[in-house]
Amino acid sequence: MTDFNNWVCPLPLRDYPRIVLGHGGGGKLSNELVENLFLPAFFNETLESLGDSAQIDVAELLKDGGRLAFSTDSFVVQPLFFRGGNIGDLAVNGTVNDVAMAGAKPLFLSAGFIIEEGFEIEKLGRIAATMGAAARKANVRIVTGDTKVVERGKGDGVFINTSGIGIIPRDTNIAPNLAQAGDVVIVSGEIGLHGIAVMSEREGLEFDAAIFSDCASLNFLVAEMLEVTKEIHVLRDPTRGGIASSLNEIAKASNVGIVLQENQIPVPPIVRAACELLGLDPFYVANEGKLLAILPRAHADELIEKMRSNEFGREATIIGEVVQEHAGMVVAKTGLGGTRVVDLQLGEQLPRIC
Amino acid sequence: MTDFNNWVCPLPLRDYPRIVLGHGGGGKLSNELVENLFLPAFFNETLESLGDSAQIDVAELLKDGGRLAFSTDSFVVQPLFFRGGNIGDLAVNGTVNDVAMAGAKPLFLSAGFIIEEGFEIEKLGRIAATMGAAARKANVRIVTGDTKVVERGKGDGVFINTSGIGIIPRDTNIAPNLAQAGDVVIVSGEIGLHGIAVMSEREGLEFDAAIFSDCASLNFLVAEMLEVTKEIHVLRDPTRGGIASSLNEIAKASNVGIVLQENQIPVPPIVRAACELLGLDPFYVANEGKLLAILPRAHADELIEKMRSNEFGREATIIGEVVQEHAGMVVAKTGLGGTRVVDLQLGEQLPRIC
Repeated sequence: MTDFNNWVCPLPLRDYPRIVLGHGGGGKLSNELVENLFLPAFFNETLESLGDSAQIDVAELLKDGGRLAFSTDSFVVQPLFFRGGNIGDLAVNGTVNDVAMAGAKPLFLSAGFIIEEGFEIEKLGRIAATMGAAARKANVRIVTGDTKVVERGKGDGVFINTSGIGIIPRDTNIAPNLAQAGDVVIVSGEIGLHGIAVMSEREGLEFDAAIFSDCASLNFLVAEMLEVTKEIHVLRDPTRGGIASSLNEIAKASNVGIVLQENQIPVPPIVRAACELLGLDPFYVANEGKLLAILPRAHADELIEKMRSNEFGREATIIGEVVQEHAGMVVAKTGLGGTRVVDLQLGEQLPRIC
Repeated sequence: MTDFNNWVCPLPLRDYPRIVLGHGGGGKLSNELVENLFLPAFFNETLESLGDSAQIDVAELLKDGGRLAFSTDSFVVQPLFFRGGNIGDLAVNGTVNDVAMAGAKPLFLSAGFIIEEGFEIEKLGRIAATMGAAARKANVRIVTGDTKVVERGKGDGVFINTSGIGIIPRDTNIAPNLAQAGDVVIVSGEIGLHGIAVMSEREGLEFDAAIFSDCASLNFLVAEMLEVTKEIHVLRDPTRGGIASSLNEIAKASNVGIVLQENQIPVPPIVRAACELLGLDPFYVANEGKLLAILPRAHADELIEKMRSNEFGREATIIGEVVQEHAGMVVAKTGLGGTRVVDLQLGEQLPRIC
């Protein structure tokens, strides 16, 4: 495995241990950064050709009538490095997952960097190496990119935008507005890990055990799920705003109600403890390697069995159901037989988590 | 025509005249921003469905064996508003042009915003309205987006990433490494306007006449050019680093020499005057509505005639030729019969111009 902690700056970049404005200027310094840092990290044939746009052949893949999934996400996480990942694999996995949540096979990514003058080249190298490794692991290619540099104090280290393209098979139809009464809600595993990992790193908090982000690409898990049934109605990775925000959006888009069984939702003890300490609700904490699936109950058992055979679905479980009542609203049945409304929050309890 | 200067903030946003962190949090504030500001500005059916990724049907367009062009660009221009445009139409036109320079028909854009806390909603509204208008003018659709907010002092107003997808027809093969000895170099019009317009706005400089950015989408011009001949070898929009940097990249990628006729290059008097005053070389100043075309001399006259019939190609002219000698190098023949090397610069003489 590549040792990202020992990334060594290649020779032509060594005169500049830190990013200068010229690295974003489209001249020799930009070229050196691309050729010595980004290309080796991301290497693949399409990227090598280095035009302003990548030219990619997908006609064969679409000949049966599939569609494209196209998604974009900017990443501004702070700190840039945290337990379980850094902004680099977060940026790759985040967009791979957004594309996969349309039931698509993610294929191509773009990568746009906005770097603050003075940022250490060595850190950028480690981030790029992590991105390349995450892309290879997810079997996607970073085929086009862009680098801009802003003056010191006008950015914050590095921001990364990734956009992604995938192919949705002809017979797959998954979208946030397709949940139906009678469907069940499945979560692929324990919630809250990414948000708490980043926040504890940022605030310098120590808990009984280290908390690691769950940051991961879920495209292979989704592919295996679609082998079980094409009747999955909704897939969603509950990132910003956690499962509460994602389910609220789905309830609203599909004009249905969602009823969660609070004691069925897998909240790891360490996330629960951290949330209690900090006054947070784990339902609203970001995840970066989990998904929600909504589908007819008839397929649920078989799907969960399949999910549990994948490393990213080990704790897959049913956490609730879709109902006709209280359309647009998510409620949770508490252990004591009560019911509480799980509303959409105004903002986010943890800013800059992704 | 829409009056972008009189953009009025819609009702639900009025409680917040400035961006707060919660606008990037994925909760109610984010939704209000999307539904009341971005959606009305960008409106189209694909965007309305509001999933994490757009689902787009291109199978029919690719059935004859075309390829996808995929490009990304982040925009960090300062100031955000300048004579002839703002960061919004710059972001749309820039990526439309990158896609068009592969000989593609641009179709879909993503838009990712990184906004600094405290940024005026009214300015964001004007920028979004300008983006929507530019997209409609270029006949492309903004189909997916993302908004992040960073704390005051960690950004600079707003940064915008756009990624673009287009379709390259099967019989079109245009790339930076395809220039051949015997080809001519055509520029579509006067150079240096965007860079000088932004720089004069930034520095508060006044010249005899106002200088306006040439910011424009060139996809229809490219389509008309490809009606004349499919034998165009290279297309490039000479943005960052100007025509000098673009031609250096092409000379290197194609392993050919390029000889420019300095007195044939259309530098408007006002750009020449500004450059002399500021110690800049117009060959290195950014353009945002011009293209370079490299193709066999046999097709040049007919192509130029066609280009001149398009509003963005009025001053199209031959400025040089491709030769076997001095591979990888660009030289300019001066009016006095001398020759000077037009080298790639280390950085950029004007940072944050796009």
